[in-house]
Amino acid sequence: MNTKEKLFSRKSAPERSARMVETIIGCKWSLTVYHLLNNDINRPGEMVRSVEGLSTKVLNACLKKNIDFGILNRTTFNEVPPRVEYNVTPFGTKFINVLEGLEQLQQDINMENEQLTR
Amino acid sequence: MNTKEKLFSRKSAPERSARMVETIIGCKWSLTVYHLLNNDINRPGEMVRSVEGLSTKVLNACLKKNIDFGILNRTTFNEVPPRVEYNVTPFGTKFINVLEGLEQLQQDINMENEQLTR
Repeated sequence: MNTKEKLFSRKSAPERSARMVETIIGCKWSLTVYHLLNNDINRPGEMVRSVEGLSTKVLNACLKKNIDFGILNRTTFNEVPPRVEYNVTPFGTKFINVLEGLEQLQQDINMENEQLTR
Repeated sequence: MNTKEKLFSRKSAPERSARMVETIIGCKWSLTVYHLLNNDINRPGEMVRSVEGLSTKVLNACLKKNIDFGILNRTTFNEVPPRVEYNVTPFGTKFINVLEGLEQLQQDINMENEQLTR
């Protein structure tokens, strides 16, 4: 019989949000899309024209994934021709902040590696 | 010939730091260890005694991984019996902040799911 009192139990991991980070980091265009949106390039045609190597098909798959995750939202304007714009949601803003924290860490790692090889 | 000028190129992902997050989230005891350290429980024996289900062997593997990543450091005090303490490095503090950002996101996701099922 175990009579010792345990003060702490296992802390559960933020699995879904971590999975989101994995998926988004794995989808190599998401970071580029956030960068475009940050530069007020938020229409799909404009995005494809602005980035070397980005196709409409791949962009649409990337945008869809981000919408499913609640990172971006899609607004359709009732114009002729119809206009579609993508924007970052409040949740998406927090998510992108976490990614920026990761980029900062990556820079720290790169700097340390440089110092080690000097 | 492509005469259009592309303004943006693909943004590279913070792959190593993202990999670290995956590994740490995958290692189910790391978050618990950070929580212990935050409560000034930083000697291995004390850690094992404080947590239900944590063995010395698993704890040592977890501590080693965190040391390899530069998240924790290990200090040995020249005493009898020898005393060993673990602490979070400055890099580790930033890393743990990113994980806390992830936990915050996870809470947002959980809250939204609750609202959807109400």
